[in-house]
Amino acid sequence: MFKADRIRAMSDGMFAILITILVLDFKLPEYRVGHLLAAILQQWPILLAYVVSFAYIGTLWLFHHDFFSTISQITPALNIINLLVLFSITLINYATSLISATLSTLNVADLRTAIIIYDICALLISFTFELMYRYVYRHPELKEHQRNANEEAYFIKSDPIISVGIYFASIIISFFSVIIGGAFLLAGIIWHATAYVRLSNKVRRRA
Amino acid sequence: MFKADRIRAMSDGMFAILITILVLDFKLPEYRVGHLLAAILQQWPILLAYVVSFAYIGTLWLFHHDFFSTISQITPALNIINLLVLFSITLINYATSLISATLSTLNVADLRTAIIIYDICALLISFTFELMYRYVYRHPELKEHQRNANEEAYFIKSDPIISVGIYFASIIISFFSVIIGGAFLLAGIIWHATAYVRLSNKVRRRA
Amino acid sequence: MFKADRIRAMSDGMFAILITILVLDFKLPEYRVGHLLAAILQQWPILLAYVVSFAYIGTLWLFHHDFFSTISQITPALNIINLLVLFSITLINYATSLISATLSTLNVADLRTAIIIYDICALLISFTFELMYRYVYRHPELKEHQRNANEEAYFIKSDPIISVGIYFASIIISFFSVIIGGAFLLAGIIWHATAYVRLSNKVRRRA
Amino acid sequence: MFKADRIRAMSDGMFAILITILVLDFKLPEYRVGHLLAAILQQWPILLAYVVSFAYIGTLWLFHHDFFSTISQITPALNIINLLVLFSITLINYATSLISATLSTLNVADLRTAIIIYDICALLISFTFELMYRYVYRHPELKEHQRNANEEAYFIKSDPIISVGIYFASIIISFFSVIIGGAFLLAGIIWHATAYVRLSNKVRRRA
Repeated sequence: MFKADRIRAMSDGMFAILITILVLDFKLPEYRVGHLLAAILQQWPILLAYVVSFAYIGTLWLFHHDFFSTISQITPALNIINLLVLFSITLINYATSLISATLSTLNVADLRTAIIIYDICALLISFTFELMYRYVYRHPELKEHQRNANEEAYFIKSDPIISVGIYFASIIISFFSVIIGGAFLLAGIIWHATAYVRLSNKVRRRA
Repeated sequence: MFKADRIRAMSDGMFAILITILVLDFKLPEYRVGHLLAAILQQWPILLAYVVSFAYIGTLWLFHHDFFSTISQITPALNIINLLVLFSITLINYATSLISATLSTLNVADLRTAIIIYDICALLISFTFELMYRYVYRHPELKEHQRNANEEAYFIKSDPIISVGIYFASIIISFFSVIIGGAFLLAGIIWHATAYVRLSNKVRRRA
Repeated sequence: MFKADRIRAMSDGMFAILITILVLDFKLPEYRVGHLLAAILQQWPILLAYVVSFAYIGTLWLFHHDFFSTISQITPALNIINLLVLFSITLINYATSLISATLSTLNVADLRTAIIIYDICALLISFTFELMYRYVYRHPELKEHQRNANEEAYFIKSDPIISVGIYFASIIISFFSVIIGGAFLLAGIIWHATAYVRLSNKVRRRA
Repeated sequence: MFKADRIRAMSDGMFAILITILVLDFKLPEYRVGHLLAAILQQWPILLAYVVSFAYIGTLWLFHHDFFSTISQITPALNIINLLVLFSITLINYATSLISATLSTLNVADLRTAIIIYDICALLISFTFELMYRYVYRHPELKEHQRNANEEAYFIKSDPIISVGIYFASIIISFFSVIIGGAFLLAGIIWHATAYVRLSNKVRRRA
């Protein structure tokens, strides 16, 4: 067992890079001289996809931050699971570029592909987070002492299972309507963000 | 409430990446063999935009650094506001590429677009910083104990409101003259940097 | 001699960046509108190479993490050796792009080139890690006191020598069969990952 | 005055990114299928420029690391000087790409341009380091108490002035011979690295 400091530093470093490289796809558009504004206005899909993915990775970082601040010891197994979590989050960069490209052309088949791939990445992320939560739940010796039993169940009960449902529904619905499928994907991400606010309020009231 | 260490680490990581990826736009120019020097000399707009944006993000980092060194505890809300601050700073990368591209062609309409978008990003940054200052001002329990009441007002009173005025003026003026509008934008950034020096001298004299 | 904190921070920063920039090669494919899915499916070599290299760098980070958590003091020489380790790992990014490009075209001569270059990078990594292990083994004063003699031999005895053998065999075999040569390369990386799990179990049982 | 921890973290983050993004220019070459090896062998200028610049930035990091480990307090002015140091190091990325491009075509005029620009960046780096050393020399209150007067002069006396001479000579000589000018540039960088080893040996002998 090792102290948790360095796994936090490594994770924060990766989160900082992952959330920042998203902006690298938000580039100077090709434009005819004198018509820059028109070219920029056509970039709304890139800005939209960027804002959503930034909010998504930001929310994941907040959950990760709060979760690891309850942990004082780590094991090699937790280190490996954490790498799986981070790996799955790296894929959002690729999925984001698919969304912004297909929102530009608005081809239904391509949009469906992009939404489903984003959903699969989101499912993978929720799955690996769930894995991490369950592992720590089964290893209470990794926790800081001052935490109580209620808080140990804090993360487990909440987020991942419901979001898995939403993302799964988004995949199925996308075969019938990309608009409703896309709305479910967006709802899943907003649900994550509000879940964070809701849970952190609950923790504050208890304290 | 959590200790402020990790929010500092995450923020520093993002600042380090944001300020460093600016240089990625400062690339080998396309050139005819034997005429590299001429091609490099034509890159002055990229160098100029790079220097200004590096100074700007550097100044923002200095303010952020000094501000967070007065804080010992963080809340989820402060974490979220800090993410908004960092999000708004990520947009400078895009705005910088617009400025350097339009300085190369010197088309007035395009320059106006680029200056106004840079101004909007700067306004957003000042607004989110102001939000962060006000939040901490209303939550003095997050501060370290040794700080006094004067210092609590330190950040609030100063920077953001005046800079919002300068950037707003720059937008309006750009519709009449891109040169004066651009000068106001530059003045706003220089004002930030000198405000940092001025404020840190004030703090030193008091100590 | 200096405290080991900052060498850990620098190394973690570089590992975080190295493992994250791998994903930058996993980009939006060029595709005909309406045929995005087909274009994505043809990207399997990029995904495969990405997963393998992510697992490889991740494993190297785990070894590095565990190794440095036994060290409390560093010397300039260790700092230099550590930079050599990190330099050799940066080359994986290039080797990965060779593998994914040649897996797309499946030309035997090109595949052989890509596999051998990846092997050479992996040999260099194992060699520099070995150098680092041996240096610290000869300087037990750098270690934390609570570690025992058994653990001092922990890293030395195990990983690098066997992996050097596997990667060397992969180079030789590639001249006769790129499929078996590639399989050896993959086996070397998987061997690293399992070596980490095996060794960390051994340490746990002893504790 | 603030604790020096966060300036170290920010600097390490930027060094880690600066040294790692160098590898982004070391990319998959364009090649005819079946002729990858030939295309790779023609990339030797990129590899050479990469190795030299990695060694250079690595050496700068080692100096920076050792220097800041003698400092326990920072002022806003030191923060600003440190940003100037880091700014000047970011330019190496651009200068490196000029060197590798001109080594590929071997045009004398272009090589001269590339060498002189690399020299100017190196001069700027040595100058800003010197600025930082002198500032801390004049502010001994920023130092940790256990250091003695000899060590306070440790950095000042040594590195920057001689290297400024070498880089300046390289610029002048480049107008007559790019080969000798380039050799001086390389000598300057090797001199830095050996200066680090020499000085750290001196410190060790004294301790």
